[in-house]
Amino acid sequence: MRAEMSEAGMDFKFLKNLIVPAQTRIVMLIMDGLGGLPLEPGGKTELETACKPNLDRLAARSALGLTIPVAPGITPGSGPGHLGIFGYDPLRYEIGRGALEALGVDFELCPEDLAARGNFCTLDSNGILTDRRAGRLPTSQSLELLALLREIRLDGVECFIEPVKEHRFAYIMRAHGLEDDLCETDPQKIGVPPLPVAALQPGSEKAARLLNQFIEQARSRLAGKSPANMIMLRGFARFPQLPTYSEVFGLRAAAIAVNGMYRGVAKMVGMQVLKFDGDTLQDEISALENHWHAFDFFYIHVKKTDTAGEDGDFYRKVQAIEEVDALIPRILDLEPDVVIVSGDHSSPAVLKSHSWHPVPTLLYARYVREDCIAEFGERACARGSLGILPAKDIMPLALANAGRITKYGA
Amino acid sequence: MRAEMSEAGMDFKFLKNLIVPAQTRIVMLIMDGLGGLPLEPGGKTELETACKPNLDRLAARSALGLTIPVAPGITPGSGPGHLGIFGYDPLRYEIGRGALEALGVDFELCPEDLAARGNFCTLDSNGILTDRRAGRLPTSQSLELLALLREIRLDGVECFIEPVKEHRFAYIMRAHGLEDDLCETDPQKIGVPPLPVAALQPGSEKAARLLNQFIEQARSRLAGKSPANMIMLRGFARFPQLPTYSEVFGLRAAAIAVNGMYRGVAKMVGMQVLKFDGDTLQDEISALENHWHAFDFFYIHVKKTDTAGEDGDFYRKVQAIEEVDALIPRILDLEPDVVIVSGDHSSPAVLKSHSWHPVPTLLYARYVREDCIAEFGERACARGSLGILPAKDIMPLALANAGRITKYGA
Repeated sequence: MRAEMSEAGMDFKFLKNLIVPAQTRIVMLIMDGLGGLPLEPGGKTELETACKPNLDRLAARSALGLTIPVAPGITPGSGPGHLGIFGYDPLRYEIGRGALEALGVDFELCPEDLAARGNFCTLDSNGILTDRRAGRLPTSQSLELLALLREIRLDGVECFIEPVKEHRFAYIMRAHGLEDDLCETDPQKIGVPPLPVAALQPGSEKAARLLNQFIEQARSRLAGKSPANMIMLRGFARFPQLPTYSEVFGLRAAAIAVNGMYRGVAKMVGMQVLKFDGDTLQDEISALENHWHAFDFFYIHVKKTDTAGEDGDFYRKVQAIEEVDALIPRILDLEPDVVIVSGDHSSPAVLKSHSWHPVPTLLYARYVREDCIAEFGERACARGSLGILPAKDIMPLALANAGRITKYGA
Repeated sequence: MRAEMSEAGMDFKFLKNLIVPAQTRIVMLIMDGLGGLPLEPGGKTELETACKPNLDRLAARSALGLTIPVAPGITPGSGPGHLGIFGYDPLRYEIGRGALEALGVDFELCPEDLAARGNFCTLDSNGILTDRRAGRLPTSQSLELLALLREIRLDGVECFIEPVKEHRFAYIMRAHGLEDDLCETDPQKIGVPPLPVAALQPGSEKAARLLNQFIEQARSRLAGKSPANMIMLRGFARFPQLPTYSEVFGLRAAAIAVNGMYRGVAKMVGMQVLKFDGDTLQDEISALENHWHAFDFFYIHVKKTDTAGEDGDFYRKVQAIEEVDALIPRILDLEPDVVIVSGDHSSPAVLKSHSWHPVPTLLYARYVREDCIAEFGERACARGSLGILPAKDIMPLALANAGRITKYGA
């Protein structure tokens, strides 16, 4: 599935016409899954529990608010969550499932790639589906079978296969002219054979033909295996064509992230993904320092907060926030014109998952109207002057505070 | 440029059908550029600094909030800023540049007028543009040349020329059947001749023909002058056809304003612009008292707050607010059913310009749910129960509080 370019233009047309150049720098620090909940009703959230003097001091000089990544009550995946805080309406701009699956396993998706979600399944001797998930094949067995699939060769095409978990994997085909208007092969029920890949428009015929060749070779190589003797592919998606940060915001933007998913989403909006040594938060801040003069905008991604939240480890999430806090002075020493501290969604440890709760957000700048609330936390942000706002509204506010939006009308 | 009537209808259709008559009066007091910023981080804004016992007392009995005139991060001009607080989405209803230029110099634009932004330029002996601004001609020289242009006569057309500043002027043509779908004459670069006015649709041909006649006569009269020997016209705009206060809100509305820009925007939404003696704030309140029984709605415009803000004079803006405060009792003595105190945008003295910051807003009425916050200020309003809301939402709230909206659905 592709982002709708015509509407894309419409969405940003108004803002685009008001963008002016400036010698200012914006830092967007995203703690993944930042928003939380108390362990017990009446208690403090992870962020409220953390000892974070630097963030609290910054909050006192900032405007605070709670951001809604997608829509009220909606729990975002990492893709939509990031699109929101990056300034894109996640209901308008979609990243296809296949592309997200590939990004999710840190595959460096390229613009000409066609990605799909793959899974092993079980057929009977007549080629009829008897188990759509091959008994949720253990990951270890899946890895062995994927090695067989990696031996498949197709003319003029490069194929990549990345394990996900159990019976699932990501499949990426790299070649010119692959379009993604394709029918999936999973018939969504047992008792029938898997479907062939069918092109939904003439431009997708090349992709359909190659994918069917791959599937038939997979069938041969898996023949006689049990329980997984076949594959199915779905969620075909090209690298989405999103309006870029340069086009719509006039920003030379850089992304500092360790994990592939976030590097991928940043690349989709036209950020330059920085290469750097190491994979710690300190290394990320060093990358920021080393590239400070080459860009106008820096997105920094912190993964640990989300991992701890999804693991249900309240105090590990508290600790992750405290580690970020300790590095805030290094960011402020660079004298950024605008600092945003926020998350792409909430991941309360008590829920062990992403959640729909709005995300604490701080906007610091010289001419921000500061709320004089000396705490960065969920309840503090609920009292802030940014209000409870769509995450996509943060970027226009950041640009205004960076002197990059001119007056509308006389 | 015309407001889009088809969408206009859509926009207000829902509200229009719920409007019921009532014997109630609404006062909307707009302090231009009301919102501000502290002189130093951590300090108080102009409004927070002002000694304003009457406004603070009114605030305690009101619902408070911060209004976003156009969109988050967008700095509005006076036109879009006023449309917002008047209840119109400024992204949907546009006032053309030419019309704004004319209003901005207090020209009383009429519905059949076609207005343009004009400027002097320099041509070489071959008629090629060498300076698009005629060296930013001093205003005094511009005035002399404008006198020459005023002598031009065209059959069946009345022309008006008003100086703006330096090389710029407003040009207004008054006649039947002038449409504004026209190409501008400024080629946006030097080294080429200015363009003729071209009609973009058949209905605009009359206007194009007359404008080209005017331009050629201007060329003759300016021949031999230096540096300004030609004019260019752009931003052609009719008086916009906006839905009126009477049509969409069922209000007999009056406008009390000294400056032409604000009188003009009020006229565009169908308010009756009151004539009154004097030009002080006291005179404006006297006009309110004198016309109290003839209208349901009064818009009162205070200019001084914005002028002080744009001049960067923090304490003059404070003083302007205090002058308004002193007159609040005269307004309340009339026993209005609803009082709105707000601004069309922010103009912080530290920025010496309009800004994107949300605007402090107070809504008083008998059955408003009062916030019991006894202060009218930016931070106080950020805690108010109106929240951070689009300025256009204030009018429906005012109408509801004035008993002018009936129940929706059974």
